[in-house]
This record gives sequence, C-alpha cells and structure tokens, in this order.
Amino acid sequence: MFQINENYLQLGESYLFSTIARKVEQFSASHPGVDIIRLGIGDVTLPISPVVISALHRSVDEMGVKEHFRGYGPEQGYAFLREAIAEIDFQKRGIGISPAEIFVSDGSKSDTGNIGDILGEGNVVAITDPVYPVYLDTTLMRIGKTDKIRLLCCSEENGFLPELPQERVDIVYLCYPNNPTGTVMTREQLTWWVDWALENESLILFDAAYEAFIRDESIPRSIYEIEGARGCAIEFRSFSKSAGFTGLRCSYTVVPHELRVATANGVEVSLHHLWNRRQSTKFNGTPYVIQRAAEAVYSPQGQQEMQAMIDSYMQNAALIRQGLSESGFTFFGGEHSPYIWLKCPDGLDSWQFFDRLLEVCHVVGTPGAGFGSSGEGYFRLTAFNNAERTAEAIGRIAQLSSTR
Amino acid sequence: MFQINENYLQLGESYLFSTIARKVEQFSASHPGVDIIRLGIGDVTLPISPVVISALHRSVDEMGVKEHFRGYGPEQGYAFLREAIAEIDFQKRGIGISPAEIFVSDGSKSDTGNIGDILGEGNVVAITDPVYPVYLDTTLMRIGKTDKIRLLCCSEENGFLPELPQERVDIVYLCYPNNPTGTVMTREQLTWWVDWALENESLILFDAAYEAFIRDESIPRSIYEIEGARGCAIEFRSFSKSAGFTGLRCSYTVVPHELRVATANGVEVSLHHLWNRRQSTKFNGTPYVIQRAAEAVYSPQGQQEMQAMIDSYMQNAALIRQGLSESGFTFFGGEHSPYIWLKCPDGLDSWQFFDRLLEVCHVVGTPGAGFGSSGEGYFRLTAFNNAERTAEAIGRIAQLSSTR
Repeated sequence: MFQINENYLQLGESYLFSTIARKVEQFSASHPGVDIIRLGIGDVTLPISPVVISALHRSVDEMGVKEHFRGYGPEQGYAFLREAIAEIDFQKRGIGISPAEIFVSDGSKSDTGNIGDILGEGNVVAITDPVYPVYLDTTLMRIGKTDKIRLLCCSEENGFLPELPQERVDIVYLCYPNNPTGTVMTREQLTWWVDWALENESLILFDAAYEAFIRDESIPRSIYEIEGARGCAIEFRSFSKSAGFTGLRCSYTVVPHELRVATANGVEVSLHHLWNRRQSTKFNGTPYVIQRAAEAVYSPQGQQEMQAMIDSYMQNAALIRQGLSESGFTFFGGEHSPYIWLKCPDGLDSWQFFDRLLEVCHVVGTPGAGFGSSGEGYFRLTAFNNAERTAEAIGRIAQLSSTR
Repeated sequence: MFQINENYLQLGESYLFSTIARKVEQFSASHPGVDIIRLGIGDVTLPISPVVISALHRSVDEMGVKEHFRGYGPEQGYAFLREAIAEIDFQKRGIGISPAEIFVSDGSKSDTGNIGDILGEGNVVAITDPVYPVYLDTTLMRIGKTDKIRLLCCSEENGFLPELPQERVDIVYLCYPNNPTGTVMTREQLTWWVDWALENESLILFDAAYEAFIRDESIPRSIYEIEGARGCAIEFRSFSKSAGFTGLRCSYTVVPHELRVATANGVEVSLHHLWNRRQSTKFNGTPYVIQRAAEAVYSPQGQQEMQAMIDSYMQNAALIRQGLSESGFTFFGGEHSPYIWLKCPDGLDSWQFFDRLLEVCHVVGTPGAGFGSSGEGYFRLTAFNNAERTAEAIGRIAQLSSTR
C-alpha cells in the first residue's frame, strides 16, 4: 500500500477558532438578542481603496481584449510590480534591494509555509512561543516531532522578545511587529539577531507582514535596514493587512543574492536560485489583475489611501489601549501593531477570561493559550473592528473591571 | 551552517524554453524582417470571455464597498464555486462528487507539485516519459534521485499509453488528454489502470487539465467515470486551457472521501483530511474575484463562450492535422487535445528538426526531447495560435516536405 507523510499525524488539530465559534454559538443560542462584539478577528474589515479598485477594473478590461490579454506571467511576478516594490518599500528608505530579489506570490502563509521546501531536514529550527501557528505546523509537517525544534519563550519577563539561543540553532523564525503579542524589536535588538545569525551561519526567516503599522521611524520596518542582514535573512511581506488584500491575495518574499550556503560537499549554493527553482516549478504566478492592484498601492494616491486605512485601525488600537489602561489592565502592543496582548486579570487563565468576557461583556477575543503554551494567561484583542464597536466593547470591559 | 534541501542540486536545469528563445533570437538577429510563426506556445491566446469579464467587474465592485467586502475566504474555496463545479462537471454527467470533495486552488501546477507534501518518501513513483516536467521535478525535489522513480516509456509502439507496471509501484502520475503527446485513454484503458491501482493499493494522480478538449463522449473526461476510482485516485482540473485562465489562475483538485490509507501502525487515514490540513496550513485560498470569474464559467452563457473558445482552438488543431496529413507526416493527437505530436521526418532528431523548421519555414515548435528521453525524435505543435497564422505555418511546412 502507498504511504502517507506520517509527520501529519503528529500535528495537533487546530481547535482554537472552531472552539471559539462553538462557544459563541452556544452563548448566543441560550441568550437570544444579546449584542456580541468581536475583537478577536484577525482579518481586515475596511473595503479595498478606490485607486486599487480602479486598477482592478482597468486590468480586468485588458483581459477581455485580444490585444491586451495576458496569459501565463513570470512566476516571480511582473517587472512593473517588482520594480514598484523595490523602489517604494526599499530604495526610497535607503535599503538596497533590487527588483530581481523580490518574488511576488499569493500570500505570506504560502511563502512562510513553503520556504521549508528548500531547506534541509537536519536543521535545528527555533520558533518563538506564543506564535503564528504556520511556522510550527509546517516545520512539523516537514521534519516531524524531533529534538530539532526549539521553542523560544516570549514572556512579560523578557518583554516578549526571545533571548539569543545559547545552543546551536540553524534557522529561526522571527515576526515583528509580532502576531499575537503586538510587540516590536528595536534596531539594537534586531542587530543582535543579525550579528548572531552571521556569527553562527544561521538563517533568519523574518516575517514583516505588519511593518506598515509601525509609527516610529526608529523601529526597523525591514530586517535589511540592519547591516549584514542580506547575508543571513529572508523577509516576508504582505499586502493583506496594509492594503486590505486578505481576500485579493498578494504578498512578496525577498531573497537577497548574497544569501549563500555551502553544501556538505563544499559547493556554494545561492538560496535565491533555489527559491526561484521552487517557485518556477510549483507555482505559476499571482493573477495579473491582482498584481495590477498591488501596483496601484504604490501610486501616490494608493499610498495615501493605505495610510488612511492603517490610521483608522490604529485609532481603534489607541481606543483599546486607553480603555484597558483606565481599567487597570496590564497589556502590551497596539502601538505599532493592530494587536493588543493583555494579561488576564484575577489570575484567570486564557479560556477562563474568554468565558468571563463573553458572558459578562458579550465581547469575543482570542485566548493567548491558543498561540502556544507561553501564551497561557494572556489574551489577544485586535483593532480590526470599527471605531464605534471598538469603543462600545472597551466600555463594557471597563464595567467588568469596575465590578470585580 | 544551516543546510539546504540538497535534492535540488540533483535537478536538471530546465533549458528547454530558454534554449528555444535563444535560438529564435539568434535567427531573428541574423535574418532581420523574417516573419516567424510560433506553434510551440503552450499558453492560450484568446481573451477572457464576456460573461467572465462581467463577473470580475461585479465582484471587484463588491470589494470596494464595506457591506460587500470579503476578507479571508475558506482555504478550500467558496461554496458557490465548489457547488457549481460539483453540479456541472460531475453530477450532471452522472459522477458522484460532492462539493466538500473539491479543493479550489490557484493552479494545477501548484496542486500537482504540492500533492507530494502529504505522501511518504518511501513510495515507488511511476512517471510517464515524455511528460509535463512538474511531476518529475517535484518528485525529485522531495525524494531525490533514488531507485524509487520508474519512467514509463510512451512510444509509437504502445500508442503513447504506458503499460501497467510489472513491478511494485505505489504512485503513478497519469495525464490524459496528454501533454505533450495529445493522446487520450479510452474507457477500457483507464479501467485497466483503476483496477490495477485497487488491486495493488496504489494511488493514481490523474491530471485532467485538458478534459474540455475531448470531442467524443465515449472517452472519459474524469477518472471518476470509472468504477472504483473514488478509492484510488486524486484528480486535478484547471480553468487555464478550457476558459483561458492562464493569467487569472484558478484550478481545483478532487480528493474523494473514500480515499483512505493505513499507516505503518495500522491507523486508517483519510487523504481528504491530510490535503485539507495541508491547504489550510500552507494556502489562504484563491482570490474572491477569481472565484467569481470561475463561477461565471458555469453559467449557461459561460459554458457557451467556453465551448466557442475550445472550438476555435480545435479548428486550428484540425488545420494542423490536415496539413501534416497531406504532407505525409506521421503524427498523433490533436483530435481531443490542443497538442499535435509529430514524428520528425528523415531520421532527424528533435533539435535537428527544430532547426530545420526555424531556418526553412520560420516556424517555431517544441522539440520532443525536451519532455524526456522517450520524446527524442518527436516534435510538439500546439493549436493556440490563431487560425490565419496556423494555416500560414502549415502551408510553409507543406512546402518543406515537398522540397525534401
């Protein structure tokens, strides 16, 4: 009989969001008419901005006309988009990334999941805890439950920033601004990681999906702002949260030409070459119309519209921060991130606090324990609902704290 | 130092299309003003049909309005599309496939490449030769150059239909109508394969990307027309060639619920469950607007427009067949496929015939040797150019044969 990849059997089933849905459904059924507000949502809610909608309509029209129709595009993405990305996201900020180093794709979930295809199974892999579950699950799918996975605890004690590994680590996933904790890394802290990776000949997989939410220019938005990072890091970027593309699907990954590794036989290999081979063989490019939409984000109007969208979410984050602060909660994030990570009050664990918030305030959030064992005792709120609902939810949480 | 997946180093670099491009470029440079016709193209050329364009515009407008905006969709695809696929492509043809068994994705190249993620590395894998290179390359990426890969020779002698393996094979890739040979499998022949797979507890990966080109109802368009196939086959389908979606990117994969396998420990596992876990973890769905476009293909007008497109390409195929026949070529395919596979005349090998066709006729095709060693001595022409240019090219090839 043919065999399956049995590593899949070692994966925990992800019950987090289905458990939340079931609990909310049960509560609604037994409390009909109750107005429930969702601050657990990790998806954007504002519509696609006007200049992007226009670009979509224009390119759709092109596809209907023989003279302008486009079939297969380059697997790496069209030059018009790769050039806009290189110029606006990097070169204008003084970061030397060329269009050829950029691979356009359909989502950071795909790219952070697929990157393992080109990496060896013998690597020791470090993953922060709590964490976006894709890094851990896709590593388990590939190498199974081995002694090669290290969880780097992120807690209040270390400011939710992992300490540099004391033992050998070949690959580390870092995500800053962080999901779920909402925390950021300063330039100094990120420099420690780059220096560590260069010294140890390790690889950093840097997920910068939330960089657009950074409000302080002193905090690095790209790992390539740090000297030497071109020789030790791959960076993942997304249009999902910055321009509301969660339903349009576009992202990109940067693999610098300097990123080279010696094989067991001493042959020097370029990771750019390997990723290009992977993408050319297992991917056929992002839809033309979606790439035109992403290009429009880089127009002057597109940049303004994107900023307005981010400002709107960050006003919600400020509302949440202010409300939690006035109610005496301990919390983190929400300054350069749409996520606020609060410490559950009264010694409650993550799910106990979830239940109390649902039952007393009719507000839904996400239990921190769902992101890893170090998330126990914490709770994630997001800034993706609208201002009115966010304010209402925070008002209810304030009452909770005043009555306890 | 961190390690790479060294299987990548064992891959042959794919020089086929770059070599073709270089040769054409050199010829053009030394023969300025010469009118070169391309019949090597594997991409569609007709624009997206009107009802699909309308669906795109409508859904783009929805994305710009708060009340209708859609963020993350289900990783498996929206119900509206899965239901249309199940009804029109299967149930109306008497094939019992349910919407829940369908996984919408961004391309068959992705799915045929990624399917290996859920399969064990110990499987013996059989691949036809000549072949669409993705099956072999992605197998090599995963398990390396081992004695576990069997090439099934497809030649004039066996009618380009592989013989049933005489030794143990766990997984076989079959593509019918075939790329590159343009040949099809009869119901009887496909039944042999399904019976073989059931008897041997093997898995068939059936690529039906060209099923829409079948003109004869007696030839199976889906492997699930064969009794028992739900227990031994995964089927890949694409909108690329049927509805011209090569630049829009949409396809789907069918994983029936009956497809189950016992692990080494005797645990029974559903492949549907594994593929769902893979797609939920490493993919975030096909863009909403693209899924609405695919849905429109299933409307009565969409079906008519698709058929007109296919008819147009098949008229080109008929032109090519007639011309080659009158010129005394031996050739295959082109009846239920946009591909015509011709035997190089005068004992020429694939590249020699390529050169002669370019130099004498100014026509570009694809050397069969580029699809595997059993393709040596053959040549692929495609029906994707327009009628006028196709007729002109065939006229030139006729002169070549009359002067030889």
